[in-house]
Amino acid sequence: MIEHPWISVEPWAIHETALSLEHLAQTESVFALSNGHIGVRGNLDEGEPHGLPGTYLNGMYELHPLPYAEASYGAPESGQTIINVTDGKILRLLVGDEPFDVRYGELRAHDRLLDLRAGTLRRTVEWVSPAHRAMRVTSTRFVSFTHRAIVGIAYEVEPLDGPADIVVQSELVANEPLPLPLISKDPRVAAAIDSPLESEEHLCSELAAVLVHKTRGSGLRMAAAMNHLASGTPRMHTASETSADSARLVVTDVLQPGQQLRLVKFVAYGWSESRTVPALRDQVAAALAAARQTGWDGLLAEQRSYLDDFWARADIEIEGDAELQQAMRFALFQVLSACARAEGRGIPAKGLTGSGYDGHSFWDSETFVMPVLTYTIPSAAADALRWRHSILPDASARAQALGHRGAAFPWRTIHGEECSGYWPAGTAAFHVNADIAAAVIQYVRATGDDRFDRDVGVDLLVQTARLWGSLGHYDLQGHFRIDGVTGPDEYSALADNNVYTNLMARRNFVGAAAVCERHQDKARELGVTPDEMASWRAAADRMLIPYDERLGIHPQAERFTDHEIWDFAATRPDQYPLLLHFPYFDIYRKQVVKQPDLVLAMARFPEAFTPEQRTRNFDYYERITVRDSSLSACTQAVLAAEVGHLRLAFDYTAEATLMDLQDLEHNVRDGLHIASLSGAWIAFVFGLGGMKDHGDCLEFSPKLPDGLTRFSFSITHRQQCLHVNVTGQTATYVLWNPGTLRITHYGESLFVTDAAAIVRPIPQVSPREPPTQPPGRGPRRRSPG
Amino acid sequence: MIEHPWISVEPWAIHETALSLEHLAQTESVFALSNGHIGVRGNLDEGEPHGLPGTYLNGMYELHPLPYAEASYGAPESGQTIINVTDGKILRLLVGDEPFDVRYGELRAHDRLLDLRAGTLRRTVEWVSPAHRAMRVTSTRFVSFTHRAIVGIAYEVEPLDGPADIVVQSELVANEPLPLPLISKDPRVAAAIDSPLESEEHLCSELAAVLVHKTRGSGLRMAAAMNHLASGTPRMHTASETSADSARLVVTDVLQPGQQLRLVKFVAYGWSESRTVPALRDQVAAALAAARQTGWDGLLAEQRSYLDDFWARADIEIEGDAELQQAMRFALFQVLSACARAEGRGIPAKGLTGSGYDGHSFWDSETFVMPVLTYTIPSAAADALRWRHSILPDASARAQALGHRGAAFPWRTIHGEECSGYWPAGTAAFHVNADIAAAVIQYVRATGDDRFDRDVGVDLLVQTARLWGSLGHYDLQGHFRIDGVTGPDEYSALADNNVYTNLMARRNFVGAAAVCERHQDKARELGVTPDEMASWRAAADRMLIPYDERLGIHPQAERFTDHEIWDFAATRPDQYPLLLHFPYFDIYRKQVVKQPDLVLAMARFPEAFTPEQRTRNFDYYERITVRDSSLSACTQAVLAAEVGHLRLAFDYTAEATLMDLQDLEHNVRDGLHIASLSGAWIAFVFGLGGMKDHGDCLEFSPKLPDGLTRFSFSITHRQQCLHVNVTGQTATYVLWNPGTLRITHYGESLFVTDAAAIVRPIPQVSPREPPTQPPGRGPRRRSPG
Repeated sequence: MIEHPWISVEPWAIHETALSLEHLAQTESVFALSNGHIGVRGNLDEGEPHGLPGTYLNGMYELHPLPYAEASYGAPESGQTIINVTDGKILRLLVGDEPFDVRYGELRAHDRLLDLRAGTLRRTVEWVSPAHRAMRVTSTRFVSFTHRAIVGIAYEVEPLDGPADIVVQSELVANEPLPLPLISKDPRVAAAIDSPLESEEHLCSELAAVLVHKTRGSGLRMAAAMNHLASGTPRMHTASETSADSARLVVTDVLQPGQQLRLVKFVAYGWSESRTVPALRDQVAAALAAARQTGWDGLLAEQRSYLDDFWARADIEIEGDAELQQAMRFALFQVLSACARAEGRGIPAKGLTGSGYDGHSFWDSETFVMPVLTYTIPSAAADALRWRHSILPDASARAQALGHRGAAFPWRTIHGEECSGYWPAGTAAFHVNADIAAAVIQYVRATGDDRFDRDVGVDLLVQTARLWGSLGHYDLQGHFRIDGVTGPDEYSALADNNVYTNLMARRNFVGAAAVCERHQDKARELGVTPDEMASWRAAADRMLIPYDERLGIHPQAERFTDHEIWDFAATRPDQYPLLLHFPYFDIYRKQVVKQPDLVLAMARFPEAFTPEQRTRNFDYYERITVRDSSLSACTQAVLAAEVGHLRLAFDYTAEATLMDLQDLEHNVRDGLHIASLSGAWIAFVFGLGGMKDHGDCLEFSPKLPDGLTRFSFSITHRQQCLHVNVTGQTATYVLWNPGTLRITHYGESLFVTDAAAIVRPIPQVSPREPPTQPPGRGPRRRSPG
Repeated sequence: MIEHPWISVEPWAIHETALSLEHLAQTESVFALSNGHIGVRGNLDEGEPHGLPGTYLNGMYELHPLPYAEASYGAPESGQTIINVTDGKILRLLVGDEPFDVRYGELRAHDRLLDLRAGTLRRTVEWVSPAHRAMRVTSTRFVSFTHRAIVGIAYEVEPLDGPADIVVQSELVANEPLPLPLISKDPRVAAAIDSPLESEEHLCSELAAVLVHKTRGSGLRMAAAMNHLASGTPRMHTASETSADSARLVVTDVLQPGQQLRLVKFVAYGWSESRTVPALRDQVAAALAAARQTGWDGLLAEQRSYLDDFWARADIEIEGDAELQQAMRFALFQVLSACARAEGRGIPAKGLTGSGYDGHSFWDSETFVMPVLTYTIPSAAADALRWRHSILPDASARAQALGHRGAAFPWRTIHGEECSGYWPAGTAAFHVNADIAAAVIQYVRATGDDRFDRDVGVDLLVQTARLWGSLGHYDLQGHFRIDGVTGPDEYSALADNNVYTNLMARRNFVGAAAVCERHQDKARELGVTPDEMASWRAAADRMLIPYDERLGIHPQAERFTDHEIWDFAATRPDQYPLLLHFPYFDIYRKQVVKQPDLVLAMARFPEAFTPEQRTRNFDYYERITVRDSSLSACTQAVLAAEVGHLRLAFDYTAEATLMDLQDLEHNVRDGLHIASLSGAWIAFVFGLGGMKDHGDCLEFSPKLPDGLTRFSFSITHRQQCLHVNVTGQTATYVLWNPGTLRITHYGESLFVTDAAAIVRPIPQVSPREPPTQPPGRGPRRRSPG
């Protein structure tokens, strides 16, 4: 996108004013629509040309074997990969004898607009067919936030300069051929997801049709159904037909200039591990009936209303940098789209915008996405954590298979089973368990949701704490050690006492003991004894946090600072990302950081470091962090703001925010980075806003970087909505609901109400000399001057 | 074998007095014959039944893809696996209408004898056919040590109780069907080596035939040819025929009791990467001609003479334990067989006795086999190291691909390219490079072979030293550190400053600097400067050797002793070997040792440890060493003897010696453990003999354990042959050649000559309390009392 010249900067839209075939795959990701349950890529209505056709259902996957050159105990034998399900967004157009295809004839205008308030993708095309007939085609597409099974499309055709015989084919297409190199470079995965669906039933009636399929390996059943409203001239004629892998409504008409054919298409999806063919078929039919009942306009009105509510609670206003404002809202829209209606399913790293990372969910859901949800749409945060709760049996079985107690959540999965085929950066990255526990603790602290605490929190916190108890041990000095695990930085592995991991395990222990105290009956059901709780508190107290006295900094893990520093001077720009050009053994044993690890620890545990340590640590790790991961900039933004490098903080904030819209990682074609998009919020709220949640009190230390004239954000906290407005001189706090909320502003205690905004000055800090990054690996400069 | 009741204990033979079909695969390994160039498993002449048919040519392999669940830079994409080549040992017999098959009819007697002095496998069978004809079948088989391309078989048939129409089919069979689970559990490997040979030519004449084939993937050409001498009655008739994958000589005769058909079969093998079909065909024809010229009796006489010479230099006599005596000679015979005529090829871990470990060579060649060769048949040691020299270009390319200097030899290979598909225990186990360097240093020190030193030594030592220079770095204290590598113990990986590795790298550095001083012109050709030599010496001086002051022991690697000790009490006997029942991540991060690592370091570097450290270290590591590797007992024997646990030393010595003959590891069916068989020699000579080579002086501190009444061994050192005889009270030293050799006996300097044996008393040591091993993991008790 960064080289796509036709995206205009608008505050509430992504607006592409001309089509770039070269950027087709990227725009398909950017224009993807999702509600967390269904996702459709921004493919052209007519299906072709495409980068990667994509329609996804959260949780719908196929299995494939995970092979190993040398077998080892505990290595998962089966992988899961997201599949492209029955495509219901296809509407093909024939004008005279000519199929509408943007590659042929003359494309006079092509305009696509993702409206972030309406929740629609609108397309307007003026096309002259090879036989010289000028046509206008417009379509409006949405994935409903309020009817979670429904995709709606309104498709309009109109001749501009003479009469036209037209045919519109509205389709459901299963087992769509995919461009192989894009779905997977691995022939085994490609084989598994090439035509993954077996037909079970296909039916059509007048304007409607349904296809029922089942995946070959994973045995998941799905149904896709469509129904239509068609309006044209009196000569309009419709007919429908189906076969195993396709259903088609054919609409023919003869239009004069000024006449229009309009087709409204509702598509409904459903899938299940257990429901029968009739049950699923009826389920999608019912969803269609409900959608028709609400009607096109009604659905669009609900969509806008849902988003109005979201923006009222979640919008971040940014003044002084229009690109950032646009990118920020795009980020929030896409995070919402990934999570809104996931309801008991995971949040994949790419949401439902592409097949990147095989559609797996990772630790980044809890670590980066969950804070945004917790403080904007907490119900979605609870849903996502309930998914973790639902896969607890898999996690417990995995812990047992590994010879440990409690639960070991998968490093990557769709359905719950571990799918990581590389254990040093999979199984060994146990911090995912504490990440989940911390998200639970954060959610309960921010919402006070006692029922969740009891129904979900106890199980998750107890089983993860048990895992840590089993993984760690006391050394001769009485320290609690956690050896041989992998922290967030994937350029290190199997280290002893990773600071991030140990601090997170400590939080996990303390949180588990606390939740068991709050819900003693529930804890007893799990067999938690006072002894066990005491053992958690003791381990937390005695947790080893290594510190390098010589350098006055925290090593990321024990011995890290004894290792050789990566030879950055000898590393060419084209050798990044390093993992594609150097062997793991060499990357692991040297001081080079892919993504913040110790810096993430400081972001999550400010209280565990003195201000001087934070400053020295940040400066030390900046020099060796290469940001080969999109999960870097937001964390660096937070710490840079914290230690007073405001200009650097702004540069990182901008990078986090623009990551996908400017395709800074060059892989947006595979899907958006939901965690990274969430990072934009984190950078603004936790970074520039300086927010910390102490449960009974929210702490703020906002600061406005050069380059902005104002920004504001809102925080939902215990059913209250706090609005924070930051300018160069002051911060203004007000509640948007009746009530009182205790906060601190730069240490000053304030009681914020809805009665009157509280305005406080922002202390000015003199900038310090910023640290340097490895050559070529600093953030793009965004700050002026 | 341990449960095979029909192996009798004889000093110079492995004698099986009845056939056990259940132990067929094991006896095929034990009765395998090889000269290091050709290997044939002890399959029955008639081919079936079999455990695993096997005929191998050293270096003849097929390629197969190495797959990964997740790709990583530098991971080898292609594996190599030894193939079963054209089988020339098949002689099928038809009596009347009945094929001779031990499973049918009545087997009255079945006797096989591997004669360790004759170098032959003799088989005598009395069989009554299902049609009640009693027959005697005898065969004698050898793989010639003096004609390295030749296998000889004499096959005799005689009816015992009446006339018999007989047919003998002498065959060459290519692409023999293999029992799939035995060749590989991996379907990809199985696919690659199922019918690996493509026919290029097949020819036969009167009594001779030749088959030429090429491997599909690796493109290696091979020829197998046979010729015969047949003598029977005047009614004997012969005919030959060939097809793409088989050649057959059919001999028919009608025999009366007292009459015999005798067929002498010579099989010749040749293979090449580059030679043409005619060249290879002629090569094997010439080998056959030479064999026929020498004749059956001549070849057997040469075979015996070759072995007489070997036994004179290499025999270890053991009195007081007949089983050990037999096993020791079996071990020496098989080590000789694996290496004698390898001539420029590697020594596979299983020799040419089976397809275990894919036929790969590992570090054990240099570490365990090379000492035996160096002090008994030094020319074979030189040959094996010349193989390493020949694959130096591959090793240099590998180092470069890994981003390092010098040469990085493969962890496992046949042809020279890295074939390890699991880098934490493959690529990261860089010590293999220092193991090769140390073998070079040891060979040159023991032989004074200056030409080898210059032609082979300089290259190998310089390129391996360069690798270490590139792998290591100086820390802030000025120590030279080698981080993130894997030592010999495969239950640890990616540790910092593994003591074994660092001591070996130090030896490598010092050896490289020394060889460059000796051959300055050659060193200059390699671009070695005085600066580079100084850098090696400096790194050697400053090499970090971690020591744990609290425990007063050396940690195997930095931080090792901080790790949790494996919960041996909770580990059931059926959970060994651990790697099949626990995940690597957990094994790696705990104190549990698969095979000696620090103890191996002490065995190889006695001078680097004080006697007190040796004792404390040995006792500490005994408690956590589970010996899940056959490469354990011999090293533990050496150190146990060194620190005064003589009874334990003997138990380990016995275990090392009996490993294969008693199938202690339960996998002899896949082939013999050549390194472990070499370990028997190491345990006796370096352990009970207490030998250390200081170059200009051999040190001895022999001791006789309870359970033996005497043992003796010989050492070839700088063209001299020293004989050492050890009884309970004295050690006797004599040279078996004119000359003088300086040695020490318990510190006393002696000049040994051939004129008169020197007899010295052996000091008696009072036994110390021996350390314990993990429950159930101690050696079997062999010592009396």
